[in-house]
Amino acid sequence: MSKRTEISSLGEFGLIDHLTEGLQPENRSTCYGVGDDAAVLCYDGGVKTLVTTDLLLEGVHFDLVYTPLKHLGYKAAVVNFSDIYAMNGFPKQITVSLGVSKRFSVEDMEELYAGIRIACEDHHVDIVGGDTTSSLTGLTISITCIGEAEADRIVYRNGACETDLICVSGDLGAAYMGLQLLEREKLVFNNGEGAQPDFAGKEYLLERQLRPEARRDIVERLREMNVQPTAMMDISDGLSSELIHICNQSKKGCRIYEDKIPIDYQTAVMAEEFNMNLTTCAMNGGEDYELLFTVPLSDYDKVAEMEGVSIIGHVTDAGLGCVLISRDGNEFELKAQGWNPLKED
Amino acid sequence: MSKRTEISSLGEFGLIDHLTEGLQPENRSTCYGVGDDAAVLCYDGGVKTLVTTDLLLEGVHFDLVYTPLKHLGYKAAVVNFSDIYAMNGFPKQITVSLGVSKRFSVEDMEELYAGIRIACEDHHVDIVGGDTTSSLTGLTISITCIGEAEADRIVYRNGACETDLICVSGDLGAAYMGLQLLEREKLVFNNGEGAQPDFAGKEYLLERQLRPEARRDIVERLREMNVQPTAMMDISDGLSSELIHICNQSKKGCRIYEDKIPIDYQTAVMAEEFNMNLTTCAMNGGEDYELLFTVPLSDYDKVAEMEGVSIIGHVTDAGLGCVLISRDGNEFELKAQGWNPLKED
Repeated sequence: MSKRTEISSLGEFGLIDHLTEGLQPENRSTCYGVGDDAAVLCYDGGVKTLVTTDLLLEGVHFDLVYTPLKHLGYKAAVVNFSDIYAMNGFPKQITVSLGVSKRFSVEDMEELYAGIRIACEDHHVDIVGGDTTSSLTGLTISITCIGEAEADRIVYRNGACETDLICVSGDLGAAYMGLQLLEREKLVFNNGEGAQPDFAGKEYLLERQLRPEARRDIVERLREMNVQPTAMMDISDGLSSELIHICNQSKKGCRIYEDKIPIDYQTAVMAEEFNMNLTTCAMNGGEDYELLFTVPLSDYDKVAEMEGVSIIGHVTDAGLGCVLISRDGNEFELKAQGWNPLKED
Repeated sequence: MSKRTEISSLGEFGLIDHLTEGLQPENRSTCYGVGDDAAVLCYDGGVKTLVTTDLLLEGVHFDLVYTPLKHLGYKAAVVNFSDIYAMNGFPKQITVSLGVSKRFSVEDMEELYAGIRIACEDHHVDIVGGDTTSSLTGLTISITCIGEAEADRIVYRNGACETDLICVSGDLGAAYMGLQLLEREKLVFNNGEGAQPDFAGKEYLLERQLRPEARRDIVERLREMNVQPTAMMDISDGLSSELIHICNQSKKGCRIYEDKIPIDYQTAVMAEEFNMNLTTCAMNGGEDYELLFTVPLSDYDKVAEMEGVSIIGHVTDAGLGCVLISRDGNEFELKAQGWNPLKED
């Protein structure tokens, strides 16, 4: 009998690493392949091409019970732009492939596309191609985004240096709390309890989940202030997981401080209501699409005065590991899923 | 109640046309967007970037009962390369996104990737990125391919001129007959008739279905012979359908001759066995991935001597429509699905 290894034993990152192991580029235009937010292609001249792709499957990545199609289209596009911004570049083109089951009408697809178009207008991106096909079950959305950056501006995950400051934009955990809220209301609704959901005062959480923003503004401001990050990623899987990526790829460690992690008031209220550990939500809740980046210590003054950017810690020698310092001064090693040993799952 | 239009009322091409209607490029680097085999992006210098994408869903585009995963990977990559060749360019990079259900093991994905890697090696293409994610049902493969071509070499679908010769590479209908054969054997097997399939003498048909080739060689030879096609497409949906695309986009008509359509001996034998109209199979059977192109009449001598290229007709004024001249001299108007009014479905 042939060997069967469960994919779950490798995990998603493990699987892609495993499958792409040892790939050696053949083409002069392939500057950087698998392993960062986007690939880097280069042609003559100083501008390089960035490519990133995302596959979204109904029931895995989105639930149409509470996700309006227009929002879904917007989000599907924006998460790709976010990957290009995370390379310190600007998205320029996308291709959109849709797998659509009979359940969906033309009007449904118009709604979805309307969201994609709004996202593209907001970010000055052109839709240049795609594919639509029938599907047996549910909706599949595959978007590939092409972006541009000057060669000397591109930021990878592997450039963080010791003593660099670790910064994040916006606030964390709200998208995750928004998802919890939507899931709770879905349950209530499905149980036939008939109550209309009351989202008053929680609009920010829903918006963060349903209509995330890609931080073009941060990339623009970093340029204006002449700050060149040493490493950057967008936070799609949670701060913990992304910090570990940057540290592993840069062969460094980090220390971040619980009391420095930016959290919105509504996120805190909601965590209280759900009886969840707020820091865990902020560290491991995904889909915030904020930017996580490191800058040289000498840029402290510049980033300290940037609105909507928080300095949460610094880069250390790899030997010191990736550590969160809690409010009471204890140290916890970061884990890709849940730093908190008490976290329930 | 809101309006509901069935997607089937528009068809796949109709849907994508409808959804992308009126898109206006915003970026200088977007030369040509939706509407051809690939998008064209341009940067400084004479080389342009081509982008194409394809979404393959289990149960819609492939049946794993008779498709080995390695072949599937090969085919999934090659069909994208074919789109780039159809622009008269060369594929250089791909991104691969996979949606994978629990049914699949790591070894399965290794097989799939092994096929993708072989295709990439054969065509000198680099795998530069991708995404793997879990799926609730079946396997989803989304591949985006990036290629290059010199600005003055790119061939669109809309450049065919009156009197141009219409040419196709290889032979047609074999991939479709291969599919019929596999479907028949699957049925026999499922009915528990226990007979082992006998594919002797039909290897070519199976190979055409399971392991299609993208015609890099034709693109290379056209260059060597200094022939610049006026329009080109790859034949994925059938000759009829692709001819109509070229004629519509070029605002021209065409006349092609039944007796000039290249058909392999095995395809003919199999059509006989299945009691199917051979010309219908060749005209409407998809997935041959041969190149369909038009060249100026003045290139007649050059294309006439190209091995593996058949001249099947010529381009006419739009008013004359798209016409097939049968062996007995009758004229049939081409339809996207089945020119033959007697065709059973």
